[in-house]
Amino acid sequence: MKTSLLFQGIEKDMEQVEDELAQLVKAENQLLSQSSRHLLQAGGKRLRPAFVLLAGKFCEFPGEQLVPLAVALELIHMASLVHDDVIDASLTRRGVPTVKACWGNRISMHTGDYLFARALQIISQYQDPRILQILSDVSIKMVEGEIQQIVTAFDVEQGLKDYLYRIKRKTALLISTSCGLGAIASGAPPHLIRSLTRYGHYVGMAFQITDDLLDFISTEEELGKAVGSDLSQGIITLPVIYTLKCKSQGTRLRELIRDIQGGNNGLSEALEIVRKGSGIADTSAVADRYINKAKHELEQLPAIPIREALENIADFISIRKY
Amino acid sequence: MKTSLLFQGIEKDMEQVEDELAQLVKAENQLLSQSSRHLLQAGGKRLRPAFVLLAGKFCEFPGEQLVPLAVALELIHMASLVHDDVIDASLTRRGVPTVKACWGNRISMHTGDYLFARALQIISQYQDPRILQILSDVSIKMVEGEIQQIVTAFDVEQGLKDYLYRIKRKTALLISTSCGLGAIASGAPPHLIRSLTRYGHYVGMAFQITDDLLDFISTEEELGKAVGSDLSQGIITLPVIYTLKCKSQGTRLRELIRDIQGGNNGLSEALEIVRKGSGIADTSAVADRYINKAKHELEQLPAIPIREALENIADFISIRKY
Repeated sequence: MKTSLLFQGIEKDMEQVEDELAQLVKAENQLLSQSSRHLLQAGGKRLRPAFVLLAGKFCEFPGEQLVPLAVALELIHMASLVHDDVIDASLTRRGVPTVKACWGNRISMHTGDYLFARALQIISQYQDPRILQILSDVSIKMVEGEIQQIVTAFDVEQGLKDYLYRIKRKTALLISTSCGLGAIASGAPPHLIRSLTRYGHYVGMAFQITDDLLDFISTEEELGKAVGSDLSQGIITLPVIYTLKCKSQGTRLRELIRDIQGGNNGLSEALEIVRKGSGIADTSAVADRYINKAKHELEQLPAIPIREALENIADFISIRKY
Repeated sequence: MKTSLLFQGIEKDMEQVEDELAQLVKAENQLLSQSSRHLLQAGGKRLRPAFVLLAGKFCEFPGEQLVPLAVALELIHMASLVHDDVIDASLTRRGVPTVKACWGNRISMHTGDYLFARALQIISQYQDPRILQILSDVSIKMVEGEIQQIVTAFDVEQGLKDYLYRIKRKTALLISTSCGLGAIASGAPPHLIRSLTRYGHYVGMAFQITDDLLDFISTEEELGKAVGSDLSQGIITLPVIYTLKCKSQGTRLRELIRDIQGGNNGLSEALEIVRKGSGIADTSAVADRYINKAKHELEQLPAIPIREALENIADFISIRKY
């Protein structure tokens, strides 16, 4: 499915989002410009800006007035990604970071701070105090999710509830906030804000669950990174949680996770066990349930053409390969 | 000089600042609470909250309404400190960070993000959009300063201008902003805002110059950290810049800095050269000039008792030992 089909009805505004992002990452400092531009050009699906703009369409609000807010949401997303990279970089090198990796970490951290501050600069243009209230609340919860991911690393006793707590904070909240703020900033009535926020929550949950699934069933070529990178870092996702519960394979998987934690081999066998078990299908079913909930929520919204774009995005999320 | 003397006239509000800080660092996540509380209890001079409150006194504005803003400024300062620590930790271990250091780094980075988001939550309570505008601008410049510090590490060709660019962003801006925002939030007229902001700038510059001086002339006991830590990390401060210009010792100091960069011994001799040269006195003179400018700026302000507190702070900065 092509991006153009996903962003039907907001094509022009999305072009403006892209232009403004390119302008914004120009920093006084050359190194900061380079690192920000690198991040920007690495692409991304620009889902969050699209959600801001699509949500705004339900109020026939002039799209160009939502473009800065859409840009701010993408910047906050990029900032959180680059702070995540700080973590990944220090762990992908067999658990021992090199000096070079840490030099990169320092620049990454500051680049994240820079992009976040840029987002705040944009938000300060909007008069509605709810925008900053909501975004600061979300930022706090996002940190809680990240910390929880560190705390629960390699913890084979965690269950579905722990997993849902984490992915809600890690991913779903910023997506539901994009939908909600798009509605708020365009003066939508409370029931529209609620429905769009809920839609964003369900889509965001499905998005992260699918992401975690792809880490097992996709290929390195399609993902653009090594398969199984979550498990190699001790991040226990839903396919693993389900497989651990399985009587026949749970015990062996538990042993292998302990091996991986100890720096020993075990990843390939662990990935094979998860792939062959029923955890994949069970996880996929959970993602589908969230997609259905998202679509059900859309039925509460006026049947304008833009609703179809939101349906398309929900479908895209459940069938995507990367 | 005791803190009580520094904070004359704002003692009660400062107590409230302390109480609110203690309340705020309580996070849902235990680890996050611990790391935040650790930072808080490590103390600090609470200069930024004091500047907010003192600036507000020029408008007879109810101090308790400025307490949240004062707390936010301290949180932003703490957030930037903990992000600085991410850097320090990775370099104090002979340039090779251990896994444990990097685990600490991850928590440090997220704790910084958390404290910053907490500050934003507080700021969102204020209606004046200038507060977020100013703080986001300052945050961007602070990052620029940090990046510039990384870029210019071990660069012996840099001069006074490079140094002043860095310390303005690293330290002076948040202090001048504390003064300026205290005035803005209490409805001060433009000339008061300008004078208080300038006073904060001069005091902030003097503060950082003195800090950099103490890294050479103080003791490990007084500083609470190793002496010469700036130079060991390649941070070239004013005493070094002046000594490098000196014909008799500049060449040898240049060689030693190259040795330190290469991971060889050289720090002790380099510290001795700087201590014995005229760079210390020259640096001290620059700090004094900034203090005098700060005091001169105070003369533009109404001669209310609180002006004396600002004078005391300026004096404290120039004579402090830690």
